[in-house]
Amino acid sequence: MPVDPVDLTARLVRCPSVTPDEGGALDLLQALLTDAGFDCTRVDRGGVSNLFARWGPRGHARTFGFNGHTDVVPIGRAEDWTHDPFGAEREDGFLYGRGATDMKSGVAAFAAAAVDFVTETPPEGAVVLAITGDEEGDSVDGTAALLDWMGEAGERLSVCLVGEPTCPETMGEMIKIGRRGSLNAWITVRGKQGHSAYPHRALNPLPAMARLADRLSSHALDDGTDHFDPSTLAFVTIDTGNRATNVIPAEARATLNIRFNDRHDGESLTRWLREEAAAVDATFGTTTEIGVKVSGEAFLTPPGPLSDLVAAAVEAETGIAPVLSTSGGTSDARFVKDHCPVVEFGLVGKTMHAVDERVEIAQIGQLKAIYSRILIEYFA
Amino acid sequence: MPVDPVDLTARLVRCPSVTPDEGGALDLLQALLTDAGFDCTRVDRGGVSNLFARWGPRGHARTFGFNGHTDVVPIGRAEDWTHDPFGAEREDGFLYGRGATDMKSGVAAFAAAAVDFVTETPPEGAVVLAITGDEEGDSVDGTAALLDWMGEAGERLSVCLVGEPTCPETMGEMIKIGRRGSLNAWITVRGKQGHSAYPHRALNPLPAMARLADRLSSHALDDGTDHFDPSTLAFVTIDTGNRATNVIPAEARATLNIRFNDRHDGESLTRWLREEAAAVDATFGTTTEIGVKVSGEAFLTPPGPLSDLVAAAVEAETGIAPVLSTSGGTSDARFVKDHCPVVEFGLVGKTMHAVDERVEIAQIGQLKAIYSRILIEYFA
Repeated sequence: MPVDPVDLTARLVRCPSVTPDEGGALDLLQALLTDAGFDCTRVDRGGVSNLFARWGPRGHARTFGFNGHTDVVPIGRAEDWTHDPFGAEREDGFLYGRGATDMKSGVAAFAAAAVDFVTETPPEGAVVLAITGDEEGDSVDGTAALLDWMGEAGERLSVCLVGEPTCPETMGEMIKIGRRGSLNAWITVRGKQGHSAYPHRALNPLPAMARLADRLSSHALDDGTDHFDPSTLAFVTIDTGNRATNVIPAEARATLNIRFNDRHDGESLTRWLREEAAAVDATFGTTTEIGVKVSGEAFLTPPGPLSDLVAAAVEAETGIAPVLSTSGGTSDARFVKDHCPVVEFGLVGKTMHAVDERVEIAQIGQLKAIYSRILIEYFA
Repeated sequence: MPVDPVDLTARLVRCPSVTPDEGGALDLLQALLTDAGFDCTRVDRGGVSNLFARWGPRGHARTFGFNGHTDVVPIGRAEDWTHDPFGAEREDGFLYGRGATDMKSGVAAFAAAAVDFVTETPPEGAVVLAITGDEEGDSVDGTAALLDWMGEAGERLSVCLVGEPTCPETMGEMIKIGRRGSLNAWITVRGKQGHSAYPHRALNPLPAMARLADRLSSHALDDGTDHFDPSTLAFVTIDTGNRATNVIPAEARATLNIRFNDRHDGESLTRWLREEAAAVDATFGTTTEIGVKVSGEAFLTPPGPLSDLVAAAVEAETGIAPVLSTSGGTSDARFVKDHCPVVEFGLVGKTMHAVDERVEIAQIGQLKAIYSRILIEYFA
């Protein structure tokens, strides 16, 4: 009997796998895959659990890989949700819950497709599912750990499809063949504490922080390139933690995230951030420190056989010829790309990370059908 | 026999009257004043005790008032003090203890001056001491409670001298004839949560907050007025509390404090803040709310007979012609000013609220002499 990907999505949503908690999601998948004859290994590192599942021989030259994650971002304020974020409630053709689009439905669709495929038409080759519990967090002990372990264990992938949501509005419209780079910066502006009645005796770090945040946020990094959208910069938090209205604080902190295309790299952006901070410090007399972490440089898998295969399957199932894009956030494709050709295809991601995250139920079956067709065509 | 103001200061310092605790300080003063023929009433409200003491007839048109407080701020870490904060120990011409300058010495000096004056040269009129136990706390049930009660009881003040420390460095150099106003504003900028990889689908409140904070902080409210320093605005905190670098937050909060002169009032400043926020919202599409609390409007007792009287007494006793100032933080003069002309004069306040708070012993006698001369001249 085929695996129902909607039911599997619902069961995964009910697992409270807020990153880095496993929440029962990988256990559920491991049981399903083991039953279907997959050889499963839990690759645990740094307090994170990951699941490697292979059907067929180890290290086969024709190994199709799927990659995805079961961890989800926090729900925010529970009272803002109209449905239980871990309830997988259905209404008007949607299934609600944290991770409904990002990306428990994607994982459910490829797991269902893979199980049915190896059961119904056992291929000459291998099918691998590399599923991590650390994509929304630091991503240090997730797919990277799986790939490290695979190298040591003699496991391989010939090609890989990452099942993240890729379609902005309409199912089938977009395949991703690369990603922008991502950089986080932690900014600390230091001044001098004092009484708010005598600001001339203190040095308030907040006006300097405000100026810096305004300058950086207002700056257009570029206009985009052949395969990439324009780079973006987002301040995600500014914090001071001062509860006394009569005290000027000594320091303020902020974090920003830059998603950048192949016009930039981590080093050039770091230099730019520090130059901007130095200009603000020169104006205000503050001392600003910026720590930077580049979680991935921009990369591209040029259009070729793998993207052709995926595009043909998408068009056959949806009637839409997908565009090859590099838009959007980082994904674990940035690790996989060092291992084998990788593309990404998944459903519409509009509500990912938002309150009332939800997936159109019909899209889950459609996605499973596309993944099934890709497997069939790959091994044909 | 004249009352020794140094001994009285020491006895008050030994009362642990950390706001809002009475600590025995008002009881001690009440006993002294009752013995000297003052009619004493304890005005207790909201868990705070206050002392009203009048010598002479109720509601007399020639009633000189002193105002002060016996409550003190907490000592902080006891181990940081080199002397017992409630020991009133003397060393090298200084008397140490919490409240030694702010303002048990001031209360002791005016109580000693008042008792001696009514005993030695009973005046035609009345002398009132309005002493509160709630100046360092919320100030809701302190001098305000005394003035409310006085209104109901038919009590009055013709003029009032607040005995807070007023001299920055040298005894006699400064009389305060008004104070800046103080306003706190709590700002919330709301946008729309989203993924930091797709900033165009979210509405980040932080660029708007940064622009608003930059605009408000960069704006010069005025250049000062005849009797006032320029108004100041200080952001004291900006907070978001978002720990996920891949999430654009839904809202950001900030608090600012404005100390303003008589060119402004709470209403005009509130209007200005909201206009600035509306301009930023129009640019960014955000929704900004601003809550405001005015803890005191700016006020001025214009130079006149009362300040002339006090200035003459100060100069006669110290040889220094005091400046008339409106600098510094709030005091209970902001309540008294609605009742009668009020000025403030006291000793050097350098160590107020600090560890090892101490008063130069010689200044206590000097302060009593100044207060005595003021009483004599007022009733002359």
